[in-house]
Amino acid sequence: MTDAIDSPPTTEMPVRRALALVPRLTDQGYSDALIAERRRWVEERTSTSLPHVGTYSLPGESLRGNIENPIGCCQIPVGVVGPIEVHGEHAEGRFYVPMATTEGALARSYERGMVAITKSGGATCRVLADENCLCPTFECDDLAAATVLARSIPALLPQLQAIANATTGHGRLQRVTAEPLGRRVHFRFGWTTGDAHGMNMIVKGTEAVCQWLVQNTVAKRYLLFSAASGEKRPAGVLLQGGKGKSVVAGALIPAAVLRSVLHVTAAEMLELWQQTVVGHLRSASLGYNGHIANGLTALFIACGQDVANVVNSAIGISTLEVVGDDLYASVHLPSLTIGTVGGGTNLATARECLSMIGCVGSGKVGKFAEITAAMMLAGELSIAAAIASGEFVAAHEAYGRNRPED
Amino acid sequence: MTDAIDSPPTTEMPVRRALALVPRLTDQGYSDALIAERRRWVEERTSTSLPHVGTYSLPGESLRGNIENPIGCCQIPVGVVGPIEVHGEHAEGRFYVPMATTEGALARSYERGMVAITKSGGATCRVLADENCLCPTFECDDLAAATVLARSIPALLPQLQAIANATTGHGRLQRVTAEPLGRRVHFRFGWTTGDAHGMNMIVKGTEAVCQWLVQNTVAKRYLLFSAASGEKRPAGVLLQGGKGKSVVAGALIPAAVLRSVLHVTAAEMLELWQQTVVGHLRSASLGYNGHIANGLTALFIACGQDVANVVNSAIGISTLEVVGDDLYASVHLPSLTIGTVGGGTNLATARECLSMIGCVGSGKVGKFAEITAAMMLAGELSIAAAIASGEFVAAHEAYGRNRPED
Amino acid sequence: MTDAIDSPPTTEMPVRRALALVPRLTDQGYSDALIAERRRWVEERTSTSLPHVGTYSLPGESLRGNIENPIGCCQIPVGVVGPIEVHGEHAEGRFYVPMATTEGALARSYERGMVAITKSGGATCRVLADENCLCPTFECDDLAAATVLARSIPALLPQLQAIANATTGHGRLQRVTAEPLGRRVHFRFGWTTGDAHGMNMIVKGTEAVCQWLVQNTVAKRYLLFSAASGEKRPAGVLLQGGKGKSVVAGALIPAAVLRSVLHVTAAEMLELWQQTVVGHLRSASLGYNGHIANGLTALFIACGQDVANVVNSAIGISTLEVVGDDLYASVHLPSLTIGTVGGGTNLATARECLSMIGCVGSGKVGKFAEITAAMMLAGELSIAAAIASGEFVAAHEAYGRNRPED
Amino acid sequence: MTDAIDSPPTTEMPVRRALALVPRLTDQGYSDALIAERRRWVEERTSTSLPHVGTYSLPGESLRGNIENPIGCCQIPVGVVGPIEVHGEHAEGRFYVPMATTEGALARSYERGMVAITKSGGATCRVLADENCLCPTFECDDLAAATVLARSIPALLPQLQAIANATTGHGRLQRVTAEPLGRRVHFRFGWTTGDAHGMNMIVKGTEAVCQWLVQNTVAKRYLLFSAASGEKRPAGVLLQGGKGKSVVAGALIPAAVLRSVLHVTAAEMLELWQQTVVGHLRSASLGYNGHIANGLTALFIACGQDVANVVNSAIGISTLEVVGDDLYASVHLPSLTIGTVGGGTNLATARECLSMIGCVGSGKVGKFAEITAAMMLAGELSIAAAIASGEFVAAHEAYGRNRPED
Repeated sequence: MTDAIDSPPTTEMPVRRALALVPRLTDQGYSDALIAERRRWVEERTSTSLPHVGTYSLPGESLRGNIENPIGCCQIPVGVVGPIEVHGEHAEGRFYVPMATTEGALARSYERGMVAITKSGGATCRVLADENCLCPTFECDDLAAATVLARSIPALLPQLQAIANATTGHGRLQRVTAEPLGRRVHFRFGWTTGDAHGMNMIVKGTEAVCQWLVQNTVAKRYLLFSAASGEKRPAGVLLQGGKGKSVVAGALIPAAVLRSVLHVTAAEMLELWQQTVVGHLRSASLGYNGHIANGLTALFIACGQDVANVVNSAIGISTLEVVGDDLYASVHLPSLTIGTVGGGTNLATARECLSMIGCVGSGKVGKFAEITAAMMLAGELSIAAAIASGEFVAAHEAYGRNRPED
Repeated sequence: MTDAIDSPPTTEMPVRRALALVPRLTDQGYSDALIAERRRWVEERTSTSLPHVGTYSLPGESLRGNIENPIGCCQIPVGVVGPIEVHGEHAEGRFYVPMATTEGALARSYERGMVAITKSGGATCRVLADENCLCPTFECDDLAAATVLARSIPALLPQLQAIANATTGHGRLQRVTAEPLGRRVHFRFGWTTGDAHGMNMIVKGTEAVCQWLVQNTVAKRYLLFSAASGEKRPAGVLLQGGKGKSVVAGALIPAAVLRSVLHVTAAEMLELWQQTVVGHLRSASLGYNGHIANGLTALFIACGQDVANVVNSAIGISTLEVVGDDLYASVHLPSLTIGTVGGGTNLATARECLSMIGCVGSGKVGKFAEITAAMMLAGELSIAAAIASGEFVAAHEAYGRNRPED
Repeated sequence: MTDAIDSPPTTEMPVRRALALVPRLTDQGYSDALIAERRRWVEERTSTSLPHVGTYSLPGESLRGNIENPIGCCQIPVGVVGPIEVHGEHAEGRFYVPMATTEGALARSYERGMVAITKSGGATCRVLADENCLCPTFECDDLAAATVLARSIPALLPQLQAIANATTGHGRLQRVTAEPLGRRVHFRFGWTTGDAHGMNMIVKGTEAVCQWLVQNTVAKRYLLFSAASGEKRPAGVLLQGGKGKSVVAGALIPAAVLRSVLHVTAAEMLELWQQTVVGHLRSASLGYNGHIANGLTALFIACGQDVANVVNSAIGISTLEVVGDDLYASVHLPSLTIGTVGGGTNLATARECLSMIGCVGSGKVGKFAEITAAMMLAGELSIAAAIASGEFVAAHEAYGRNRPED
Repeated sequence: MTDAIDSPPTTEMPVRRALALVPRLTDQGYSDALIAERRRWVEERTSTSLPHVGTYSLPGESLRGNIENPIGCCQIPVGVVGPIEVHGEHAEGRFYVPMATTEGALARSYERGMVAITKSGGATCRVLADENCLCPTFECDDLAAATVLARSIPALLPQLQAIANATTGHGRLQRVTAEPLGRRVHFRFGWTTGDAHGMNMIVKGTEAVCQWLVQNTVAKRYLLFSAASGEKRPAGVLLQGGKGKSVVAGALIPAAVLRSVLHVTAAEMLELWQQTVVGHLRSASLGYNGHIANGLTALFIACGQDVANVVNSAIGISTLEVVGDDLYASVHLPSLTIGTVGGGTNLATARECLSMIGCVGSGKVGKFAEITAAMMLAGELSIAAAIASGEFVAAHEAYGRNRPED
C-alpha cells in the first residue's frame, strides 16, 4: 500500500520532491550495517545522538516482519517477581514472572500479591473459551435480501468452514453468525487460532469465505473489517469474549494471610471493593478492575505480545467475597489476547522471558493464559489491600521516584 | 507495604519458610553486579539462560525508582517514520517519530499517513485542556451531612488550593467538585501537572487536602482512590478528559493526495467511516477510532511513557468529512496521559527517542502532545484507506510475518 | 411479602400505630364501589378532589392483577396516525396506529414519516429472533467447582428443558449458558414466550430448574435475579437481544419523496446522521437513535404494554445510506419487549387500540413487532428530516404548546 | 413540516391519491364532536369498535397542544401507595403517591418500601442541581478556526446569556461550554428552566444564540441538535446530569424494620447488592438500579410527565451500606426530567394526581423531585428485599396475573 510513496513525483504535487523519506536501503535494510546507516541518517536529520538505541543484541534480520525502518531497539527494564503458585489445567506449580515496566513499585506490588496467593495455597485457574473474531459486513440490495443471506448461514456453515480451514493449518473456523441491519448483513466469524493470536491467519481465511459468499449468494460486496470485534478498542462486547482466551482465576485468602501479608481484614477489602465499584459506575466504566492494565502491560512488553491488545485484554471483572473471616478473590479476563508463537514472541528477549515461565512455542498458550490470570489476581489483591490499608502512598514513596516532577 | 514479606516467619504460617523470594540483595540490588547476580539466581531457579535480557546499556542505578528486582532489560525494535508536518501552538515543522513495536506493517502504515498529511500541507494541532484528576470519597454520618460537605466546597476552594499547592512546586490544584451519594461524598480534584504525568504529585497533594477536610469538616474519613478517574480503565467519562492532555488534530487531504498516496476517494473514506461507526455501535464501544492503540503503544514504549495509560489515552473520536472531493480528517484524544519528565523518560533509550522529536525535559509536553495527535491522525487515515481500498491484507502479507502460525 | 404491613404492631416499633396505610378493603377492594370508597379516603387524606380519576369505563374487577389499591384511572390522550404500509412476514398492508402521548407535535411527526414510507412503497420488516432471558447465579465452594458446574450444562440441557417446559404450556426454554466468575456461576436462560412478554412464566420455569440444579449438582444455592438480563435497564448487552423480539425495518425513500414529504435531500440526511452519531459517541450512548423512545412510549401506553420496558426496547441502531439520490433507511430494535396477551393487554382501551392494528390476542405478536418497527422507522425519518431541514422548531411551535413555561 | 402531506398531488407521485390520511377536520378537530367524528372514521377504516377509547372526561379542547388527530383517551389504572415520610428542603411530611401501571404487584412493592422508610423515620432528600442541556454544533472552515471559536466563548458568555434570556421569562442560560472536533465545535448550553421541563423554551433561546454566533463569529452554520445531550437516550453522560434535576435520597433502615417489614438482614441486602452489581457489570449497564424504571414510569404516567424521559431519568446509582446491623440505602437520579407546569401536567387526571402530593403548578418542582427520589428509594429497598428473601416470586403469584400466558 505504500508504492505511491516511492513512486516518481508528478506535476500535480510539486511539494513532493521536498519530502525526505527515511531511506529504504537494500532489501528494506535489516542487516546490522544498514540499520546503523539508517540510524546515522536519523541522527543527522534530527541532530541527535542515539548510542543506546544502537545498543542491542537482537540479530538485525530477526526484526524483519516485526518493524519497518529499524534503527535499533529501546530497552525496557525487566524485573522478576514471584513465586506465584498456580493450579490450572495447563499450568501447575510455582512460577517467577518477568515484568517490563518503568513504573516504580509496580513489580513489588505484584510480588506481594503473589506471596499472598502462594501462602494461601495458590490460585485456581481455568481457560473457559478461546475465540478470535473477525466481523465483516456484506451489502445486499435491500433488507429483504439481507435477511435471506443472514438466514442462509447456518445451513452453509460446513461449506464455509471447509473454505476457511483450507487456508490455514493452524486456525479453525468454529462459528459464523449473521444479522441484517438495513441493506447490510453483519457477520461474526469465530476462530480458534491455537498458540498464536493469529490475526493474519483469520484475516486470510475470513477473506476467502467473503469472496465465496459474494460469488455464490445475494451478497454484492463486503467490508472485511467493520470494527465490531473490539480488537484494541474499549468495547462492551469484549466482556463476553471474542478476542482470545477467556480465563478465570480464584483464590481463598485466609484471614491470617490477609493480616500478615496484605495488612487488611476481609471486611476492609469488601468495603474497598464496594466503594470502588461505585467509582466505576459513576465513570461509566466497562467492567471492573483495580489495575489490570498495569500488570498486563508489563507482562506483554516482556514476553513479545502485541502490547496494544492490552486495551481489549484488560477489560474484565474482579470480584471479592467475604467467606467468614477469609476472602475469596477472583478475576475474569474474557478477551485476553496472547500467543506463544508468532508476533514478537521469537525476538530474543521475549523468548527468554517466555522461557522463564515455561511458555515458549507450540502447546503453551493455555499455560500462559493461566499464569497470566493468576498474576492479575495477585495484582488486584495487592493494590486493593494497599488502598484499603492506606499504605499505597507510602509504598510509592518508598519504591517509586521521588523527584518532585513525577 | 512489603515488610511482611521480609519479616521472620511465624508459627501460624508454616508454609512460609518454603517460599523462595527473589533475593533482595544489598540496597535492593541495582548495581550491574547485583543485577547480574539476581539474573543468575533466576536462570538457575527457572532453568533458563538469559543472555539477551542481560545485554543492556542503561546504567543499573538508573533503574532505581522504575523497577524492582531488576535482572536486565528487554529489547523492543525501534523504527523511525516520517516526516510528519505539524502546525501547532507548541510544535511547528516536520518530525521523524520513533515507534517501538513488533507488529509488522505498523510503522509503514503510520509512515504512509504521515506522508499523506505532509503532502497536504500538514496537520493543525491544538491542546485544549490539561487536567489530571484524582477522585477521593469521604464518609459522613448521613446524606444530610454529606450534602452540607459537598455544598461547602466552592467556598473552601482557595483554602484547599493553598494546602494542595504547598505540597508541590510543579502541580497546581485547579478545581474541586463534590457530590453526595448516600453517606459518601464523591470528590474530583483537577490538577495541572506541567510536563509530568504527575500521579505521585497529585496523590500527595490531594491526600494533604483530604486530611485537612477530615479534621475541619463533618467528613469522618476518606478513601483516596475511588476508581472514578478512569486512570488506565475503559471509562466513558474519559471522553470528557481528566487524564492528561485533551488534544485535537485536523487536516484537509486534497483529492489528489487521497488518490496518489492513499489510493482512495473521499466518498470511499466516508463510507468506510460510516460502516465502521455502526460496528462500534454494535459492539458497545466507547468513542470511535481505527487503531489509535497501535500508534500510541509504539510511541509510548519508545519514549518512556507509562504504557498502561494507553488504555485511557486511546479513548477518543476520529472523524471524517467530505469537503467537495477532498476529505477533512480529525482526531480528538481527550485523555492523553503523557510526560516529558519523570516516569521512564530519563532512561537512556527513552531520552534518545524523545530527543528525536525535540521533546526532552521541561516545557516540552505541549509539543509532545501535538506531535502525538498529528501522528494518530496519520495512523487513522492510513488504516481507513487501507481497508477502504482493500489493500490492508496485501500490506500485511508484504510487511508482516508470513509464518503460518501468525 | 406484605404480611408484615398488616400484622399487629409490636413493642419494638412504637411508631407503627401512627401509620395510616391505604385501606385494604374487602378482598383487596376491586369492585367499583370499593374503588370509590378508597378514592374518597384518599381525597380526604390529601385534601383533594379526584373526579376525573374517578371517571373510567374499565370494569373494576378487570383491574385485579394489574394494580393494587386502585382509585380509578388516568386518561392519556390517544391520537391515530397513518397509514403506514408494512411488508413483513406477519404484517402486510396499510395500518392506522394509535399513539397515547401528551407531547405536542409527536403524532404529527410520526404521521409524516409514515406518509413518506407509504409513498415510497412501504417498509420491509423482519423478526430476527425472539428470546426472553433470565440470568440467575449459583454459588459453589470455589472456582474449580464452579467451572465443573458450568461445563456440565450443555450435556444437561435436555433435562433442564424438560423440567422448565413442564411448568408452562406457552414458554419454551431454548438455551442455557453458564460461565464461572469466582465461586459463582452466571447463567443465562433463553426462553421463547409466544405472544406474551412472559416474565412470570419464565421466572417460574427458571426457578424450577434452579431448584433442581441445587439438589443435583455441586451448586449450593442460587440467586434468581442477577440483573444481567438488562430488563428495564440501559445495558449494552441488549444490543444483542435477549429481551423480546429482535426486529428490523428498512425502506428505500426516493429523492422525490424526500423532497416533497420530508423537505430534504439524501445528502442532507446523511450529513445529519453523521453529525448526530458523533453526538452519540461524545455522550457515551448505547446504540444510536433519533427519538425511538418517543414513539415506543406512545404505542406502549396505548396498547397495554409494560411501559417501563421502553428503557430496554428503545436501545437499538438506526442507519441511513445514500443510494444515488435516494436514501435507504433502517432501524433495528434488538430487545423489543412486547406482547399481545397478558399484562395490560386485556384492559378495555388497550384491547381497542390493539384491535385498530389487528393485533389482539394469540398469534399476533410477530405482526405487532413488525408494525412497531415500521412505525419507529417512520419516526426516525421524520425527526431527522425535521432537524436537517431546520423545520423542527417551527413544527413544535405550530403543534406544541406555546405557553412560556413549556 | 407537514404541509406537503396536505398539498395537491403531483404527477411525479401517482400513488399519492390513494393515501387516505386521517381527516384533519375543522381547526384540526379538537371539539368533542369532531373527536367523535374522527373516531368513527377510524372505527370504519379499521373495522373496530372503540367505545372505551371514546369514554373520557378531559375537555376536548384541552388536548390541543398535547396530541394530534385525537380520537379519545386510553385509561390506565391508578393505585395509591404510602405513606412515605420525606425530609427534604422542598418536601416535608408524609405523602400518598399515585401510580399508573398495569404491572401487578408493583404498587404493593413500592408501598412496602414506603412503609419501611416511614417506620425508619423517613428519607432525607436533596436536590443537587437543575440543568437542562441542549448541544448544538457549529461548522467552521477548519480546526484552527474551530478552536478560535471555542476559546472565545467564556468571554462572550454574558452576551450570549443576554440574548438567550431575552427569549424567555422563565428559563435562564447558566453556562456554555464549547470544544472543537475537526471543523466542528461541539457546544453544551446549560439552562435552568424552573418548574417546567422546558424543552421548547431552551430550544428557542438556544437557537437565538446560535443565529447570533453565525452572524458574529467565524462559525459558518449550525446544527441545533447534535444528540449529545442524552435526552431520551441511554447515555453515560447522564450520570453527570444535564437533563433536569439531580436529586438524591437516603435513609437508615434499622435492623428491626429490615426484619419486620422487609424480612431481611442488612448483610443479606449487601450480598444481594454485591451480586447484582456484578450482573450490571457483566451486561455493560450504565449505572446501577433495581427497578427504578418501574416506579418512574408509573409516576410519570399518572402525573402528566413526558414518559419517554424515563429513559434518561432512570439512569442513576442505588447504593447500600451496612452500618452495624442496620442498612444505609440511597439513590441518585442525576438526570430526572420532571415538571409541574407545561407538557401534560394541565390535563385533568394529571392535575389531580399531582394535587395528591401537593405538587400542582409553579414553585413545586423541587418538592416533586424530592418525593420522586424518596419513592424510588422505597422501590429499590422493596425489590432488593424481595429478591434477597426469596419472596419475589411468591409476591408476583399473589398479586400479579396468573393466567398461563403472562
